[in-house]
Formats: sequence, C-alpha cells, structure tokens
Amino acid sequence: MKLATYKDGSRDGQLVVVSRDLSTAHYATAIANRMQQVLDDWNFISPQLQDLYETLNQGKARHAFPFDPQQCMAPLPRAYQWADGSAYINHVELVRKARNAEVPETYYTDPLMYQGGSDDFIGPCDAVRCPSEQFGIDFEAEIAVVTADLALGTTPDQALDAIRLVMLANDVSLRNLIPAELAKGFGFFQSKPATAFSPVAVTLDELGDAWDKGRVHLTLQSSWNGRKVGMCDAGEDMSFHFGQLIAHICKTRNVRAGSIVGSGTVSNKGVETDGRMEWPKGYSCIAEKRAIETIQDGQPSTEFMRFGDTIKIEMKGRDGQSVFGAIDQEIVAAVGK
Amino acid sequence: MKLATYKDGSRDGQLVVVSRDLSTAHYATAIANRMQQVLDDWNFISPQLQDLYETLNQGKARHAFPFDPQQCMAPLPRAYQWADGSAYINHVELVRKARNAEVPETYYTDPLMYQGGSDDFIGPCDAVRCPSEQFGIDFEAEIAVVTADLALGTTPDQALDAIRLVMLANDVSLRNLIPAELAKGFGFFQSKPATAFSPVAVTLDELGDAWDKGRVHLTLQSSWNGRKVGMCDAGEDMSFHFGQLIAHICKTRNVRAGSIVGSGTVSNKGVETDGRMEWPKGYSCIAEKRAIETIQDGQPSTEFMRFGDTIKIEMKGRDGQSVFGAIDQEIVAAVGK
Repeated sequence: MKLATYKDGSRDGQLVVVSRDLSTAHYATAIANRMQQVLDDWNFISPQLQDLYETLNQGKARHAFPFDPQQCMAPLPRAYQWADGSAYINHVELVRKARNAEVPETYYTDPLMYQGGSDDFIGPCDAVRCPSEQFGIDFEAEIAVVTADLALGTTPDQALDAIRLVMLANDVSLRNLIPAELAKGFGFFQSKPATAFSPVAVTLDELGDAWDKGRVHLTLQSSWNGRKVGMCDAGEDMSFHFGQLIAHICKTRNVRAGSIVGSGTVSNKGVETDGRMEWPKGYSCIAEKRAIETIQDGQPSTEFMRFGDTIKIEMKGRDGQSVFGAIDQEIVAAVGK
Repeated sequence: MKLATYKDGSRDGQLVVVSRDLSTAHYATAIANRMQQVLDDWNFISPQLQDLYETLNQGKARHAFPFDPQQCMAPLPRAYQWADGSAYINHVELVRKARNAEVPETYYTDPLMYQGGSDDFIGPCDAVRCPSEQFGIDFEAEIAVVTADLALGTTPDQALDAIRLVMLANDVSLRNLIPAELAKGFGFFQSKPATAFSPVAVTLDELGDAWDKGRVHLTLQSSWNGRKVGMCDAGEDMSFHFGQLIAHICKTRNVRAGSIVGSGTVSNKGVETDGRMEWPKGYSCIAEKRAIETIQDGQPSTEFMRFGDTIKIEMKGRDGQSVFGAIDQEIVAAVGK
C-alpha cells in the first residue's frame, strides 16, 4: 500500500492512503490519524489501511479525492531517528579520489553512517531554505526505509524482516560547511539542513521483484533545473543492503519503530570507453559530478545550486509508473526570523 | 515545576507531576498524558500542570502517591532530537593533551556538537546494557535542556528564552569504539548507546539563582560503585552556554519543540598545587580521569567500567535537596535477542 501525510496545520499532519497510481487519496481518519501511530502498532493498524487501499484502488472508496503531492508533508513529518548510511561505496571512492585521499579498508566491511536531525523534515514540494548560496547547496537523491522495532544485536537478515516502508529522500547537504565540520571530528551538523522525503511511503510489495534482499533495483531519476542529470540504478552498486545498514545501528542499541534509515547518495560505477572513464548514468548529487570533473580535468566545473534552482527526484516502477511520487523542490533564500 | 514520565508499558509512558521535594507525585491524566504533548502545546498545558504542582506541594492533591524514581522512564522516553554539545572545553583540552593533539582554534569560538540517537532513551534506574566490557564502557555526567520551537537563524540570546526544561543525562560512551568510528569521519554512532536521563525534568524557576544566563551554577555529583568521583561545578567552566549551543543548531535549520540539547561532560579546570596540577573536583567521565593520569604519569591507570559496576549522578540545589532525583544505574551484559 501507499501512505502519505497531508498538511493540516499540525505538527504530524493527517494520514492518508493513496491509490497505487497516485491519482486519488482517502483520509485514514477512522483507522489512524498519524503515520507514527501506524508504525507503533503496525500489526493491528496496517491490515485496516490495506483494506482501505484496496477499496481505493477499485474506485469504491466513499470519500476519495484527487491526490495532490503539494499538500504532503514528509510521510513522517518528524521522526525519532534518521540514520543515513553511505551504502554506495563508488560515491565514496570518487569523492576521495578527487581529493587524493585513500578509501580506508574498513569502508568495504563496515558501513559508513551518520546520525541526522529528525525533528523537522520537509515535504516533497516544500522549498529548501538556506541562509546563503555560499554554503554550497547540493541535493542528494537517496532511498530510505522505515523500520519496525529491532533489538540490540539484530542481524542483517533479521533486520530485512523489520522494514515497513520505503520512500525517497533528498538529503540536502551544504558542501562548503562540510570540511570544517568534519575536521572537528564529531561528524555532520550544520552541513545537513532539513531533509525532504517523497510524497508517499510504500510497503515492500509495491516494489514487486524490484525489491531483492534489501536493495531496490530501479532507476532513481534526478532532474536539476528540468535537465535530467541522474538515471542511477539504485540496486546494482549498493555495497551494503538495508539489512546491513540497520544491523549496523543495532550493534550497541535497540532501534525503535519509525526509525528512518537512508542509503546515502545513489551512485554507479563508471565504465571505460575508448580508454577514458565515463559515468553514463549521471549523478545523484553535484559533489559526485564535481569529483568526476576533478579526476578527469583537474578541477570541478559544475557549480553548486543557486537560489531559484529546482531539483526533482523520482523513481518509476517496472510498469513505468511513478512509485513514490516526485520530490520537487526549489532552493530559496532563508529570510531571518 | 517538576515533571516525570512513569512506566505504563507504552512507548511514551504516563506524565506525572512530582512535588518539589520529590516525595510525592500525581498523574497529570486530566491535563496531558505524555511529555511531548506538553512541549507541543506548552503555553496552554503548562499553566494547568503548574496549578497541579502547587496543589501537590501544599499536600492537597487528591490522588497523590509516593514518588518512586524506579518507575520512571526518561522524562522524554523518545524524542525528535538529541543534540549533545561539548561545552566544557577543559574536557576537550585534557583529552587532547593526553594524546599530544592540539585543540583546534575553532573550538574556542564554535561549539563542538554531535547528533545523538533519540528513539530509545532509558530511564534513570534502568540498566546500561552492553554486549562487551571490551567496548570500554564509560559514563558521562551532563546537564541537558529541552527546547521550545526555534526558527532557523535564532540567536543565542533568543535561544535562552526557548528553554522549557532542564534535566541530567548519563550519555554513556563506548570508548574503545570511538577511535575507529571517528577515523571514518562521520562522527559517533555505535560508540554512543542509549542515553539515560534523570527522574524529573524541571522548569528554570526551580533552579532559582543557580540558573544564570544559560548555565547551571550547581555541583554535579558522580559516584562510581558508591565512591564519589566527581563534585564538578557545572557553571564556572562551561565555555558555551545553552543559548549558544541551541543557536549552533539553528544556523542552518529550525529546531522543533521537545529537542534535547546536552552540555557534554561537565569538567573543571585544574589548579596548580606545589608545582603540580591537580583536579580536586574530580571527574564526570572516566576518559577524563585517564587523560589526567596520562598527562601526569605517562599512562592511564583507571580502567573503564565492568559489568556489575554502578553509576549514580545527582545534583543538589542551594537548599541541599536533590533537584532532579538521581540517575542510578548498573552496567549489565546485554544478552542476545
């Protein structure tokens, strides 16, 4: 099934069930009001939502209305955890190679992950507000999953069974703030402003065969100012699957229902053509494009985003239909409070 | 007023109002069930809780019962944000000096802060569960505040006005996991298991004059296996006050109600006695004691915690009474799920 959260002026919004083709929606009011409520009590609530979903798909839901992604908050407008991995090692390799740094051996056996802020997510069509273009505004197109409860010590295989929902994320990064922040040694903070998520979150069955052992084998499309810059395969080069990412968190603690775990920037390996490396599938963040330019030409030529720029992130299923709806955002200047 | 959350088998527990002397409590059921609810709607709900608090203090509350810290969850059993600063630069200086590393110049002007996991806090008397003593189990005694909503761009002075509650924290650290984790560059993750908080969270007026411009001028006591190891002044050497810590987060994003912001390990500067440096106020984490030993003797002699060890963290007001109740935990082996 497909679930979304509609804006209603409250912090957590109103839960809606959305039809498979994303054309219609129905308030879930009689079943549950908020997405976190569903995740807290999944086994009891989700079958009822599934029933409504089927009725909606059959065109028989009594109070269906046209679905409008503009009305969406993030499926979870605020969450108790946002843990973002860096599961596509190719991305790490490119960025490191561009600055002549080694990729540590542990990257290949132990997922890289950071703890993100989760108190104030933004909706799929909400503006990305930033105080300054000088911060180096970049999009990052990712896949994210929402978990059930998991105990300390959960294995990667067990963790796969605890994935409730899948969605897309735009994990905006402020690239020019990152070097100084990482040099301080405590990880990202100011360099990671509010993250945006796709209009709908979907259960695994919606992905069909494209979901295989913790990976989504579909193409993640990124369009920057209307120009398609990324057509990246989210499955083939994902070095750690979602079960491994979740189990990484469980090594020393429990993970509670409604935790969001991200894949990191989707990235594909380059191919050698006439003795030169090329990346025909494009990129899911500008930093990677700049890394490629640096490796090939000695310096980056693509600038980061400007106020007024737009970014659209979407994924189509094997039937050619949008699975999650599109993240479709404009970069705007944050005005002082 | 003083607020706590009682265990009731649910994820968020039941909100209780606790008397000033921590002797009695009263369910807040008729006003609000959950702590987050209060923070989401503070201006409407908090005066009602304040009324109940006053009635309780007068011994006139109708259904008061003896307050038992053992029944407490963390005041916020799960939160949308846990951002922990490192506001006592003395602590950073000692730890760095012990490993012959410089303290970067930016540490003195820009707070160091990490994003912590907030989906699964533990109560003040809950066991600290850890898979292995080899992880280097350490306590970290801290002050933490809970915020109102703050907008991107909030200044330190404005941020001071948005502090709703104060509490104590034991931000357990797994010291032997930290070097490899920080070397990966993305900050803490597995090295920071579930954090514990004091039985009650209190409003600023409960601190009286001891609260001064974002600092708590009281002694934070830490007792390890019944032996008092820390009697640290939480005010005098706090290099960044809570308004500055909160404003650090606001540089690139909003901060939403119920965000918890920590001070980092409370630490005091050493004093020179007969040509030798001494730290008569003791320590609020073992890593700092080991740093001092390394500086003085060339190597650490105090080992980290073992299973069966206990840690008690408490703070007394100027009247000699416990302000927050005590964090009182035992370290235990985590058994597999």
